[in-house]
Amino acid sequence: MKLATLKDGSRDGQLAVVARDLRSAHMADAIAPTLQAALDDWAFIAPQLEQLYGQLNAGQARRAFDFDPTHCMAPLPRACAMATGAAWPHHLALAARANGVELPAALIEEPLMAAGGGELLGPCDDIVLPFEEWGIDFGAGIAAILGDVPIGATPDLAHDRIRLLMLANIVSLRALMPDELAKGGGPLQSTPATGFSPVAVTPDELGDAWRGGKVHLRLRSTWNGNLVGQPDAGVDMAFNFPQLVAHLCKTRGVGAGSIVGAGPVSNKERSKRGAVAPGYGCIAQQRSSETIADGTASTPFMRFGDAIRIEMLDEKGKSLFGAIEQKLSKA
Amino acid sequence: MKLATLKDGSRDGQLAVVARDLRSAHMADAIAPTLQAALDDWAFIAPQLEQLYGQLNAGQARRAFDFDPTHCMAPLPRACAMATGAAWPHHLALAARANGVELPAALIEEPLMAAGGGELLGPCDDIVLPFEEWGIDFGAGIAAILGDVPIGATPDLAHDRIRLLMLANIVSLRALMPDELAKGGGPLQSTPATGFSPVAVTPDELGDAWRGGKVHLRLRSTWNGNLVGQPDAGVDMAFNFPQLVAHLCKTRGVGAGSIVGAGPVSNKERSKRGAVAPGYGCIAQQRSSETIADGTASTPFMRFGDAIRIEMLDEKGKSLFGAIEQKLSKA
Repeated sequence: MKLATLKDGSRDGQLAVVARDLRSAHMADAIAPTLQAALDDWAFIAPQLEQLYGQLNAGQARRAFDFDPTHCMAPLPRACAMATGAAWPHHLALAARANGVELPAALIEEPLMAAGGGELLGPCDDIVLPFEEWGIDFGAGIAAILGDVPIGATPDLAHDRIRLLMLANIVSLRALMPDELAKGGGPLQSTPATGFSPVAVTPDELGDAWRGGKVHLRLRSTWNGNLVGQPDAGVDMAFNFPQLVAHLCKTRGVGAGSIVGAGPVSNKERSKRGAVAPGYGCIAQQRSSETIADGTASTPFMRFGDAIRIEMLDEKGKSLFGAIEQKLSKA
Repeated sequence: MKLATLKDGSRDGQLAVVARDLRSAHMADAIAPTLQAALDDWAFIAPQLEQLYGQLNAGQARRAFDFDPTHCMAPLPRACAMATGAAWPHHLALAARANGVELPAALIEEPLMAAGGGELLGPCDDIVLPFEEWGIDFGAGIAAILGDVPIGATPDLAHDRIRLLMLANIVSLRALMPDELAKGGGPLQSTPATGFSPVAVTPDELGDAWRGGKVHLRLRSTWNGNLVGQPDAGVDMAFNFPQLVAHLCKTRGVGAGSIVGAGPVSNKERSKRGAVAPGYGCIAQQRSSETIADGTASTPFMRFGDAIRIEMLDEKGKSLFGAIEQKLSKA
């Protein structure tokens, strides 16, 4: 099923079930007021939401209305924990090469993951930042919303606790990052608010495209109207979602409603004739490629007024999660 | 006023007002069901809680009951964001010296801060971890619960948004930390669940001890019955709470119910005759001191069955926040 959280002036919004074709929706307030409430009691609540979803898809829901992504908050506007892993190390390898260094082996053996959180933005909320000079970069990624995961969970157990998947725009401030990472505390100021797709979907919605703990579909990034990336999220993902969750939970449990993000999606260029060029899921990757090829990066970071659209289509070309469509504006 | 969250089987617990002397309490459910609900609408809710607090202290609350810290969850069991700063750099300086390196200047100019979160433990909840070999260390700290703080908030604005203060046991896994920090993502696995004091208090409860954005009182750590630390949290704090909050919010806003922790508290040894020896607020600091003095660390990290008590007394010797009393047990 597909779920969204609609803006109603409250901090947690109102839970709605969204039709598979993203055209209509139905309030779920008779079942659970918020997505967090649904996650808190998932085994009991999810079947009721599924039933409403079936009625909505069959055109039998009584109070369906047109679904408008601009009315969406993040599917889970307040998460009790969030961590993001660099699960596609190709872009890290490119960055290392552009800097003339080797990628540390530790980043290939285990995911590079950092805690985050704070403001979680809706799909059409502006990215509001004060300075272009911070090197504002989008980051096309995928995030999982979890049920309760105990400390020491295996990847198999973690796999069972992945409740929902959604798209994420993991924004980075590339100019702040080197100094911040050098301090040792990981990215904090250099990772501002993350944006999310209009809907979160249960993994079964992806059919065969959800296998091995990965999403085997292309993630499309369109920057100011130009398609700049369409890497396959099922390719070159060194750590799948269950592994990322198990990494987070090695030394702690996390509660229902925690989010594990992964991104940016990044594929190695393929030389096969006729292959689709993957492009890039973050500007930093393109700048690394340019630096390696030309000695200098020519693609600038985002400018105020820029628009970024991140979307994933299924095999039939239908949007699975709806599109993240964020504009960068000046604080 | 003093607030606690009592265990009731739910994930967010039930909000209670606790008497100044920590002897009695009163459910606040007629005012707000949870601390998060109170924080979401603080300007409206806080005066009502204050009124109940006044009645309770005057012995006029109608359904007061004995306050039992063992029934407490963390004051805010699910925070929408959490970050912890190393605000007393003395222990970092000692660690650097023990390793024969200089403390990077960046750690003195700006706080070393990392996002965290996940499980937040009540004052008497066990610290449950699988391996002593992870180098399990307590960390005596202080944490602030915030109201809404916008992106780019000044320290002055941040100061106004500090709603509550509480004690924190910022547990670290010292054996996992070096490799994890070397990866660049900051501490994640090496910072497991944090424990909190029975009550969170509004800053005015501290009277003159809350000034300049710091808590000018000693934070006492008692490890297996031995008082090992009593550093003054108002001394050697290089970044006060408003500065820590402003640091977090340089590139993002945070919502009501976010937590900013600071710790471990650490004082430079004073040679003044008659001065109270500050001792240590985390074992790593003591081990650094031993390494500097003797070439080797002799104090071991925590063992299963160990007990750690963290408490702060006011000028009259009364416990302000109640005591964190956690036992380390094997997962």
